[in-house]
Amino acid sequence: MATVNPPRGMRDFLPPDKRKRDVAIRVISDTYRRHGFDPIETPVLEDHSTLHSGLGGDNEKLSFHVLKRGLAPEDFAHAKAAEDVSDLGLRFDLTVPLARFVASHHAELPSVFRALHVAPVWRAERPQKGRFRQFVQCDIDIVGEESTLAEREVLIATADALAALGLGDYRFRVNDRRLLTSLLTAAGFSPDLHPTVLITLDKLDKVGVGGVLAELGEKFPGMGDVQTLSAVLHDAAQGDIPWDADRISSLMSGEDSVAEHLASWAKDVESVVGEGRVVFDPTLVRGMGYYTGSIVELEHPELGVSMGGGGRYDGMVGRFLGKDMPAFGFSLGFERLIDLLDVAAGDEPPRVALLYSGDISPATVVRLKKELVAEGLSVRLVSVSRNMKAVFERLKTDGFERVAEVTADTAAASDLEWRALATR
Amino acid sequence: MATVNPPRGMRDFLPPDKRKRDVAIRVISDTYRRHGFDPIETPVLEDHSTLHSGLGGDNEKLSFHVLKRGLAPEDFAHAKAAEDVSDLGLRFDLTVPLARFVASHHAELPSVFRALHVAPVWRAERPQKGRFRQFVQCDIDIVGEESTLAEREVLIATADALAALGLGDYRFRVNDRRLLTSLLTAAGFSPDLHPTVLITLDKLDKVGVGGVLAELGEKFPGMGDVQTLSAVLHDAAQGDIPWDADRISSLMSGEDSVAEHLASWAKDVESVVGEGRVVFDPTLVRGMGYYTGSIVELEHPELGVSMGGGGRYDGMVGRFLGKDMPAFGFSLGFERLIDLLDVAAGDEPPRVALLYSGDISPATVVRLKKELVAEGLSVRLVSVSRNMKAVFERLKTDGFERVAEVTADTAAASDLEWRALATR
Repeated sequence: MATVNPPRGMRDFLPPDKRKRDVAIRVISDTYRRHGFDPIETPVLEDHSTLHSGLGGDNEKLSFHVLKRGLAPEDFAHAKAAEDVSDLGLRFDLTVPLARFVASHHAELPSVFRALHVAPVWRAERPQKGRFRQFVQCDIDIVGEESTLAEREVLIATADALAALGLGDYRFRVNDRRLLTSLLTAAGFSPDLHPTVLITLDKLDKVGVGGVLAELGEKFPGMGDVQTLSAVLHDAAQGDIPWDADRISSLMSGEDSVAEHLASWAKDVESVVGEGRVVFDPTLVRGMGYYTGSIVELEHPELGVSMGGGGRYDGMVGRFLGKDMPAFGFSLGFERLIDLLDVAAGDEPPRVALLYSGDISPATVVRLKKELVAEGLSVRLVSVSRNMKAVFERLKTDGFERVAEVTADTAAASDLEWRALATR
Repeated sequence: MATVNPPRGMRDFLPPDKRKRDVAIRVISDTYRRHGFDPIETPVLEDHSTLHSGLGGDNEKLSFHVLKRGLAPEDFAHAKAAEDVSDLGLRFDLTVPLARFVASHHAELPSVFRALHVAPVWRAERPQKGRFRQFVQCDIDIVGEESTLAEREVLIATADALAALGLGDYRFRVNDRRLLTSLLTAAGFSPDLHPTVLITLDKLDKVGVGGVLAELGEKFPGMGDVQTLSAVLHDAAQGDIPWDADRISSLMSGEDSVAEHLASWAKDVESVVGEGRVVFDPTLVRGMGYYTGSIVELEHPELGVSMGGGGRYDGMVGRFLGKDMPAFGFSLGFERLIDLLDVAAGDEPPRVALLYSGDISPATVVRLKKELVAEGLSVRLVSVSRNMKAVFERLKTDGFERVAEVTADTAAASDLEWRALATR
């Protein structure tokens, strides 16, 4: 007998969970579509060269490799690593496939393309609570829009989607990669050190100001002006830095234009989605190497981890297209938000059960069922058994509202006598 | 610059196609759900042992293998075949995963479980017209129902789904594996030859009666009673054999009980879905080895190939569960029917475009957009450019109904002056 469990780190979804996920995806997609984002789909497999072009950061290492077809024993013998026997892989995110998609189809797309991409991705994570090897991402991206219209449209649409899901108690934390660069430069770190310094900075939530300063001192002994960083870190830890361009540029040692740019769009978005819902976080880093400007992270008080994030990645599409193309994207953390939802059946028709015993002909049973379906009901046939208590419990669990039993006298659905399930 | 095409045999879907596919899947799923089928999801990857348990027939050979993680060069050196370096694979159908799913979760499922499983599968087919390496299957299965109620519910629900899609001009061709067995036995073929004889019989559509008889003579010289088979083949080629149990049992040299069983449920279903929509086809074989009773194929006059098929596979779930469990399933050929559909946008909100020029502030543009979205419209922002003719053509192609331009005087959405796109 073969194993009956899904592969490690992957999940089966039973009907109640599958329905909940479908409803949530429908709500998110419908909201984004009204905001002008057009749905696309790409294959779950991409060429090895697409997935391993250096754009996926650490996620590239978590890629599942698919074996080439028709390999002979000697092909294995000569192989030293996965790439020698693999030509395809499962995508680890939706951003790399989107960039490839836009490059492939740009002649058929509007010059500013707003993409909605809701689909599973795969990562060979070490299985642990809340981390899965197959999970759904909900991405929106605006490709071809240089101005902050992109930031504005993406965040406002996402705010609407969150409201539609009943998750209105969120906060966007916002920063700009260029401000981080000027901050680190002013603090005396040379550009080649920035990625490592940012990794430490990113730990503020976990280790606090003291922890970050200690780690910087350890990793870069005698380097950098800890005073400058320390001031920023303390401000960040206290939170609530106002959208004041002067204050931001002085805090981050940044150019006025960049601070003005950030304060302007973020303040506007805040005025649309609600006060306190868009805040400046000078230590927000976002892991991916491809971000070039605005970066955003979504947080929710009921979650200890981020509920999504995104940013501007102006260089990435160009890597596939061969010419520059500005882009701003956001990915909603579907697997995290789904646990917070109490999604009702929504647009589902009422569920009723039709009981029948062995003396009723199957032809009669299915005819009555079809009548009820035509009336707009969702119908399950249930054979009468000895343990009807268990049957009714199961029906209640599955969300059924009422039952009727077919008898020898039932000529049409109108003859059925319905009993509510809850009161029985 | 990396390649920008999707992998060989796989497809990107642009918004118009993606929307059409989403609408079709929604129509099919909603219909099946009203007929009492509950949606499930399984991971796209299954363990190698699950996929290669001998239940998938020839499809097992088309499986994409996924490399084990953390292999060292010596692991490759010692490998002789895919299974030495692969522990997971992409599913090639939804039936094997369903059987594994039912075995895994049977304690949480009703004793008769009606599953709806709409999802992609992967096969390393030789790429050719109409054959893809990733494609969607729409499966429904009833597990735990021994009686013909299963056949009846599945076919009637499918008929409803086809009607909802506007594909009412279909025909179910029906047979029973046990009748094929009695036919071949009566014609003098020993059981071990049946699979090969059935493969030849299955070619009747392509090579005609003469071709089938010639191939049988060639493959099995001097064996079998060609007279018996010839009579059946001629009847099949002429079509329209009535649902008369006596006639069927005599034609197929079958037991009366099997012929009565088939004629009874098929005739009943025909009386529900429409005369001539369920016909007996004595040479219908269906490729898969796991079928044990009723088999069905769906045909549509606009397609030269089958639009779906299914059958009873009473032994399969037991292979995973360890105890017998009757099952009947049907798979709708989504990739084939989608080409026949002229799906309108359906439940989509009207699409409108908001034009703006560089002198309008982004804050104004997004505020007006949000107003229109709140009114129930789907809104795209479009910057005014020199070539407005191309812009309008693009909007028409994308299904936009009307446009308005934001001016310095536009204070609220109610100030916008709309122009219909078609008449411009």
